[in-house]
Amino acid sequence: MESFSAYDRGLQYGDGFFETFTIDQHAPLCWFAHWQRIEKSCQRLQLPLPDESKLYHTALEKCQGIERGILKLIMTRGEGGRGYQPPEKTHPTLLFLTYPWADYPPDYFHTGITLTVCETRLAHQPLLAGIKHLNRLEQVLARQELSQISTAQEGIVLNYAEELVECTMSNLFWRKGECVYTPSLHNAGVAGVMRELILATLTTWNIPYKEGCYTLEALEQADEIFICNSVLGIWSVRHINKLCYNKGTLTQRLQHYILQQRWITAYA
Amino acid sequence: MESFSAYDRGLQYGDGFFETFTIDQHAPLCWFAHWQRIEKSCQRLQLPLPDESKLYHTALEKCQGIERGILKLIMTRGEGGRGYQPPEKTHPTLLFLTYPWADYPPDYFHTGITLTVCETRLAHQPLLAGIKHLNRLEQVLARQELSQISTAQEGIVLNYAEELVECTMSNLFWRKGECVYTPSLHNAGVAGVMRELILATLTTWNIPYKEGCYTLEALEQADEIFICNSVLGIWSVRHINKLCYNKGTLTQRLQHYILQQRWITAYA
Repeated sequence: MESFSAYDRGLQYGDGFFETFTIDQHAPLCWFAHWQRIEKSCQRLQLPLPDESKLYHTALEKCQGIERGILKLIMTRGEGGRGYQPPEKTHPTLLFLTYPWADYPPDYFHTGITLTVCETRLAHQPLLAGIKHLNRLEQVLARQELSQISTAQEGIVLNYAEELVECTMSNLFWRKGECVYTPSLHNAGVAGVMRELILATLTTWNIPYKEGCYTLEALEQADEIFICNSVLGIWSVRHINKLCYNKGTLTQRLQHYILQQRWITAYA
Repeated sequence: MESFSAYDRGLQYGDGFFETFTIDQHAPLCWFAHWQRIEKSCQRLQLPLPDESKLYHTALEKCQGIERGILKLIMTRGEGGRGYQPPEKTHPTLLFLTYPWADYPPDYFHTGITLTVCETRLAHQPLLAGIKHLNRLEQVLARQELSQISTAQEGIVLNYAEELVECTMSNLFWRKGECVYTPSLHNAGVAGVMRELILATLTTWNIPYKEGCYTLEALEQADEIFICNSVLGIWSVRHINKLCYNKGTLTQRLQHYILQQRWITAYA
């Protein structure tokens, strides 16, 4: 069992961030996309950037013997006094944890899922939005609520201005006509690695997309909807409460593409 | 060195809360006021309430041999799978850590301190406001900023509506005429134990007070200003940037009273 010091600022204040990788055939997938977010997270939290090749080497070692699973990297500001002030000299903690594969029913990938809308709202905090920091109580509350109110597989989470942000553990996309839409994550939410890869793919495919502020009404008008993260890949949204949607052609094309690129494991 | 499972949700998500006690003569001060906040925190985060007398007994044991110091209790939701959803059966982690005494210069207590105003803003999140949960990145950012921009001892932190909330590690009070004011903590901030004790004292002294939404302008008009927490007690605010204040009679009376009540240690 991995252990760490109780005086670590990761526990004391959530002073750090994490990354969740799919392990496929003894290696973490999408390393470079995750590394890009690690760079952003270090910059935002004023943490020293680790050595990439050393970090990758450690990650690879951790994945040995694992055909399919999940790797989590936690990076914190390390130990440092009592009180919020970061220590003058930082000795970050870098920790890799492995977990069994998530084992989602293949139906979620092939057929699609149902969303509901959470009551839990996300706070407006541009200083922390986008990165996957360790202050995740809002997501815990939203997820707790989801399991208590609904049998839906995922829940949409709004901000206090009633605008779409994301789902409890995934990012949200929809298509209306020729254009793809996804909520802006400048003020709340996590900019997922799969979200970034999808946006880059849309660019290479010459498919226009918009990141902006949208309400639930935008989803009512959508032609197709999907959610994504780096473990589940892409799931088509077939129902949001009483609204019904077909699995769209873009969703299918993207699913096919991310499998072909080996950005996800062929779990389904 | 106390250690902790890396799979604990306290590290993974900041899924828990903490309490900071002053240790004086081998015992934690203001136990009951802290216990009241523990009850609130457990209720808000849907954590099972620990047994009070058992917890107090453990706290006392931890304080043995310590004349003056600091005791920190961390309570988390314990271990539980990967993913935000809390486990069906919770086995909370309860951890007591001890630290050396904070050793603030006695002048801060006797003469007073200087405040500045932080750029870092606190998010509007009524679901989490008031409790001392483990998601404290905002305070880390504010404290980091304070040490980088200023030699002031503490920094006032506002919300995104430019309203006063608190200071980076303490609560804020001021008097104007007959009435005492303190910012409402319904949407952001930590409702400190010393703050609660001061409000209760004002009530017993028949001194009117108001909790509400105020801007920096309210402080410009104030007759006296002080900050508080359960370690430093009460410090008079003598300067906010270029504004000057006298150490007021209410501040002195409260300082005298909290020492007499043994709510703080006679460190100064």
